[in-house]
Amino acid sequence: MILIKNIKALLQVRPALNATPLAGLEQSFLPILENAFLLIEKDRIADFGEMSRCPLRADVEIDAFGRMLLPAWCDSHTHIVYAAAREEEFVQRIQGVSYEMIAAKGGGILNSARRLQNKSESELLTGAIQRVEEARALGTGAMEIKSGYGLTLESELKMLRVIRRLKSLTDVTIKATFLGAHAVPLEYKQRRNEYISLIINKMLPIIAAENLADYIDVFCEKMAFSVAETENILEAGAKYGLKPKIHTNQFNSMGGIEAAVKYGAISVDHLEVLNEKEMILLRNHKTIATLLPTAPFFLNDVHTPPARQLMNKSIPVALATDCNPGTSPSISMPFVWSLACIRLRMTPEEGLNALTWNGACAMEVQNDLGCIAKGKIANLILTKPVPSMAYLPYAFGTNWIEKTILKGNIH
Amino acid sequence: MILIKNIKALLQVRPALNATPLAGLEQSFLPILENAFLLIEKDRIADFGEMSRCPLRADVEIDAFGRMLLPAWCDSHTHIVYAAAREEEFVQRIQGVSYEMIAAKGGGILNSARRLQNKSESELLTGAIQRVEEARALGTGAMEIKSGYGLTLESELKMLRVIRRLKSLTDVTIKATFLGAHAVPLEYKQRRNEYISLIINKMLPIIAAENLADYIDVFCEKMAFSVAETENILEAGAKYGLKPKIHTNQFNSMGGIEAAVKYGAISVDHLEVLNEKEMILLRNHKTIATLLPTAPFFLNDVHTPPARQLMNKSIPVALATDCNPGTSPSISMPFVWSLACIRLRMTPEEGLNALTWNGACAMEVQNDLGCIAKGKIANLILTKPVPSMAYLPYAFGTNWIEKTILKGNIH
Repeated sequence: MILIKNIKALLQVRPALNATPLAGLEQSFLPILENAFLLIEKDRIADFGEMSRCPLRADVEIDAFGRMLLPAWCDSHTHIVYAAAREEEFVQRIQGVSYEMIAAKGGGILNSARRLQNKSESELLTGAIQRVEEARALGTGAMEIKSGYGLTLESELKMLRVIRRLKSLTDVTIKATFLGAHAVPLEYKQRRNEYISLIINKMLPIIAAENLADYIDVFCEKMAFSVAETENILEAGAKYGLKPKIHTNQFNSMGGIEAAVKYGAISVDHLEVLNEKEMILLRNHKTIATLLPTAPFFLNDVHTPPARQLMNKSIPVALATDCNPGTSPSISMPFVWSLACIRLRMTPEEGLNALTWNGACAMEVQNDLGCIAKGKIANLILTKPVPSMAYLPYAFGTNWIEKTILKGNIH
Repeated sequence: MILIKNIKALLQVRPALNATPLAGLEQSFLPILENAFLLIEKDRIADFGEMSRCPLRADVEIDAFGRMLLPAWCDSHTHIVYAAAREEEFVQRIQGVSYEMIAAKGGGILNSARRLQNKSESELLTGAIQRVEEARALGTGAMEIKSGYGLTLESELKMLRVIRRLKSLTDVTIKATFLGAHAVPLEYKQRRNEYISLIINKMLPIIAAENLADYIDVFCEKMAFSVAETENILEAGAKYGLKPKIHTNQFNSMGGIEAAVKYGAISVDHLEVLNEKEMILLRNHKTIATLLPTAPFFLNDVHTPPARQLMNKSIPVALATDCNPGTSPSISMPFVWSLACIRLRMTPEEGLNALTWNGACAMEVQNDLGCIAKGKIANLILTKPVPSMAYLPYAFGTNWIEKTILKGNIH
């Protein structure tokens, strides 16, 4: 039993039975309980409430005077299994080469794929576990991780097996997404259909048989896969029971949203470029819009996802890091919160809902995670002493996290 | 004697006698020594060189395998003595109120002034020392701190006395700047001349007599002080031997540069809005352009200082945090480096020169600080294991600092 007492404020206190993503006005409202205690029994939240009814003692007591307690982040879009950083492409972009040009010349995703193909499973695991630990220290309690730097049968399986091994090595809850359709390998440039056939007829059956993925993803974009190709892959995934979470509308609006909703996507991710018709489709299908503001920040792209319009249209918005070595080399969810407030004009409350509850819904872990409720898994962030909730995204350069508690373990 | 050995790379190795800011091609070049050792005796760098001639032993040995060593940051523009954060104005801006509107209604600097006037010297010192410690943990070894949240005789003196006490409480080298002309207090709105007279005839004589300031600053801007007012104040400062470092061209180009160079300013700071003629003036006067990219980042202002044009015109560029509770609530120089690369298109080398050597020159501490040279003060940052120099600004969400060494003390 761990008792945390004198908590200045519990943020994101919700009924245990709530199960749908927050949209519209709901997304703007953050339930807060001030001057509170919280009791953890084994890995679960056993109780919480006002200090006036605080239990007298427990095995471990933490005095949280001046501090806030909030649910650990649910980072629903990452690529943290990779072989190496790509800072040389960062320097090329400073010198004026665009990300699309870098990718067209075999840089970008293909660069990561070449490097990953030459690494062993255990080498990849060593790097990935470091990044999971870094994420945990920054408050992340659940994380989706994609394949997509393999791009061969062997290497895609290697990535997914690394993700499976990660699941057993950390308190962070992990979901795996198969993203064989991240880029067309150079050797398939003139025979794209063969690569798509490899995904559908070779990769998918083994992945399904070994139960290596929870979701399927396609990068639907001019530099990657067309809408027709996307649909073929999603349809094949559906046969194995894999729901889509897809990359679309990062640089172009070309039909990816229509394909996503047709196959029942849980979330559509990026959306830097999005039109009115696409937003209405998302609303009608109750699809989560997962925004990744660190990518346009790092690419110095003036396009930013239309968060306010999405929320005005009652589309649930989630926020994630997109952590990857090319376009978003950061695993920091606190920085995503700041950026969502600064650049997407989301309020601190809207941002926090997007980073916790809606993120949990975007990887279907909301029965156990994403808010403070009795019976939920005790995945919590304890802040340092802070003046207010809004201070947290405001203080963008400051590490205001004192402790992360995952599954009842204090880190 | 501290021996640091097996250093992957020493960054910013320069001759001890070098004393002028780096401009043009010089600013693009970063001298690096690979596979090196460095020896510290008392508070100074006693020796350094290739590992082949590394001394055999020392009292303290640090094996820096895989790690880099670089000079500690010289943050030449901060406002870290303040009473409280201003996150409520952050929320107002998200809701669509501009910074100028907030300031016009008594928010902004006047908000900080009201709060500071009600705090004691020791309360202010407690907050300020925490921020200096936070800066030191992020690698800062020297820092300029401005007054300007006092705006009364008593409170301006209080701020400057806090800065003087800070100097004796930390290893961080501190310079003080008198910024009584930060904003016109509300009660002087209809009699601006009386406030300027207060600065010139009351504040300045006492500050000079008590030796409380190293520099004088004016916020030359439509919402603050006119060019004529700026000139009067700088002229009065000159009588007491105070050189200018001025805030200008943040929102408007209105003549602040001309006033600054006329009075021999060491640096002109902000420059989000700058024209060709002003750049030529800066070049002709060898004035340092101090850019503060976190301010437009946090204000979500599309204007960014024209770093590339300044460097192309051989104007030395320094970078600083502008740490303050209203427009840049961050003391992180590593994030300034990332932002300079991402948004100002400075190369990692140009950025590092701006954060160290040119920052040192912008507060005239370059005889002792700002580079790795024999005889200089041992103010150093030891990184964690990193793949390359360019990785450092690339990894914008990662804390890659393992240790900061200031005046030979390992922190």
